[in-house]
Amino acid sequence: MDLAYYFNLAGVTVFAVSGALAAAEKKTHHNDAFSVFFTGFITAIGGGTLRDITLGNYPVSWVSDSNVLWAIFIGFVITIVFPRYLLKMKTGIFLFDTIGIGIYTVIGTRISLLAGVNPFAAAILGMISAVFGGVIRDTLINEVPMIFRKEIYATACLVGAVLYILLERLEVNVEINTAVSAFAVILARIIAVRFNLSLPKFRLPE
Amino acid sequence: MDLAYYFNLAGVTVFAVSGALAAAEKKTHHNDAFSVFFTGFITAIGGGTLRDITLGNYPVSWVSDSNVLWAIFIGFVITIVFPRYLLKMKTGIFLFDTIGIGIYTVIGTRISLLAGVNPFAAAILGMISAVFGGVIRDTLINEVPMIFRKEIYATACLVGAVLYILLERLEVNVEINTAVSAFAVILARIIAVRFNLSLPKFRLPE
Amino acid sequence: MDLAYYFNLAGVTVFAVSGALAAAEKKTHHNDAFSVFFTGFITAIGGGTLRDITLGNYPVSWVSDSNVLWAIFIGFVITIVFPRYLLKMKTGIFLFDTIGIGIYTVIGTRISLLAGVNPFAAAILGMISAVFGGVIRDTLINEVPMIFRKEIYATACLVGAVLYILLERLEVNVEINTAVSAFAVILARIIAVRFNLSLPKFRLPE
Repeated sequence: MDLAYYFNLAGVTVFAVSGALAAAEKKTHHNDAFSVFFTGFITAIGGGTLRDITLGNYPVSWVSDSNVLWAIFIGFVITIVFPRYLLKMKTGIFLFDTIGIGIYTVIGTRISLLAGVNPFAAAILGMISAVFGGVIRDTLINEVPMIFRKEIYATACLVGAVLYILLERLEVNVEINTAVSAFAVILARIIAVRFNLSLPKFRLPE
Repeated sequence: MDLAYYFNLAGVTVFAVSGALAAAEKKTHHNDAFSVFFTGFITAIGGGTLRDITLGNYPVSWVSDSNVLWAIFIGFVITIVFPRYLLKMKTGIFLFDTIGIGIYTVIGTRISLLAGVNPFAAAILGMISAVFGGVIRDTLINEVPMIFRKEIYATACLVGAVLYILLERLEVNVEINTAVSAFAVILARIIAVRFNLSLPKFRLPE
Repeated sequence: MDLAYYFNLAGVTVFAVSGALAAAEKKTHHNDAFSVFFTGFITAIGGGTLRDITLGNYPVSWVSDSNVLWAIFIGFVITIVFPRYLLKMKTGIFLFDTIGIGIYTVIGTRISLLAGVNPFAAAILGMISAVFGGVIRDTLINEVPMIFRKEIYATACLVGAVLYILLERLEVNVEINTAVSAFAVILARIIAVRFNLSLPKFRLPE
């Protein structure tokens, strides 16, 4: 599990960068160092914290393990020091974020299964771990929450979470399952963006 | 309590329909099957989950009991399959929602009292169980939260919650108390809408 | 600690007034007695409740101690009865709010340290105790959350929280530490507003 631990920290840094950048890009708000840091912080820990308090899974990771906070701080410093570089490497950020949600989904699903919840709840909590930090971020900066945006995002997480649960039932080795399921999220997301796929809009009859 | 269990599941389905429809009606957002489902999910479980994590009342119901998730799924399917019918039966939806908040209020108040909280907190948590899923729904779809809308809604829940607590003090049988207090919420809400009653707006002096 | 208890209740009343007034000032929303009360309630208990559920620190204070709810009710009555007076004494309200965040920050930091969390998490949770009720209030009334406003606010709380932790490491007496650190928050905030200080806006390169 050591590897998963470091992957998770990498995911935390990536989400912190994504949150900090999103705040910094919001021109209508006053974004000082604090609000940029805090938005990164909430984006990075929001989904996992919501998962843990829903499970009663204490202590919440960032409260007991200060490495999580250092990972966020590193993301903050990266954003402050290299903003020009970050803005140029949109594809890089997309890749980092995609890897981040892949990792968060699988770790979140595994933690939920270990807590003994039903498999449907585990899939939903895995997806929430990955996307809810971003939902809180969007709510705070007054943007349309990501679940209402066009691209396939949370759905890719749900696919990976369901795959993880299925493979676990088939008694696939946990490391292999982690890698395969996280990769499935990443692949689903890349394919969706590459080919501009989105789920059909649900239209109400007039 | 068996009856209360099935009433609660019915309430879950009703709230899931209300959330899914609210998302689908939001024309400015991209509403695919996922976002319609997820909005229904959050609306249905938001209030009860907030109550349970505030009480430390673990496991949260939908995490341990997959029937709750099936009830949400049924609400989602109803919304997808019968949207035209649902839009026509506005009165029907109003009635379902009203029955839903009556049930949620009383169950939420009872759970809070059983957790040993003070009666004022129990009344507030009963009301939160009923209305906070809707508040989160409105925040996610960028609408004015329901507690700031004109009609009497949360106040009707508060009335029912207080009535439940009073009748419990008078040692009224719990089944009778449940039925009477839920009915009080429903009646207060119907009378308010029927006669267009609202609490006076609080005006600040100019 | 008795004194801290009553200071905390005073902080609750102050935050309830601030929330109730903020709702009442929102002209685009329907603000009846319920929504004014409920906004005051959420503002007063939001930050501390979020801290407690993140720590798994049960029971949450307002759920077990009805005095907290009475303190909110007093804030509500003050808002309803003396709105004209409150609107005139903007400086008074600023002072009360500033004292409130000073108290909340220090109490929140102390509770987090007692729960055994790492010091960085304790500082963040102390700050969240003080400001997150206001953030939820702003989200509910569709305003820009306070962390994106110009004035130094949360940063002052963070300064006080860090000071408290440092003095605790130096084994300063807890009463003295509480007073000094709360005063540091208050002073930082007063100086910032008096001299119109704000942290520099973080600008992304064009």
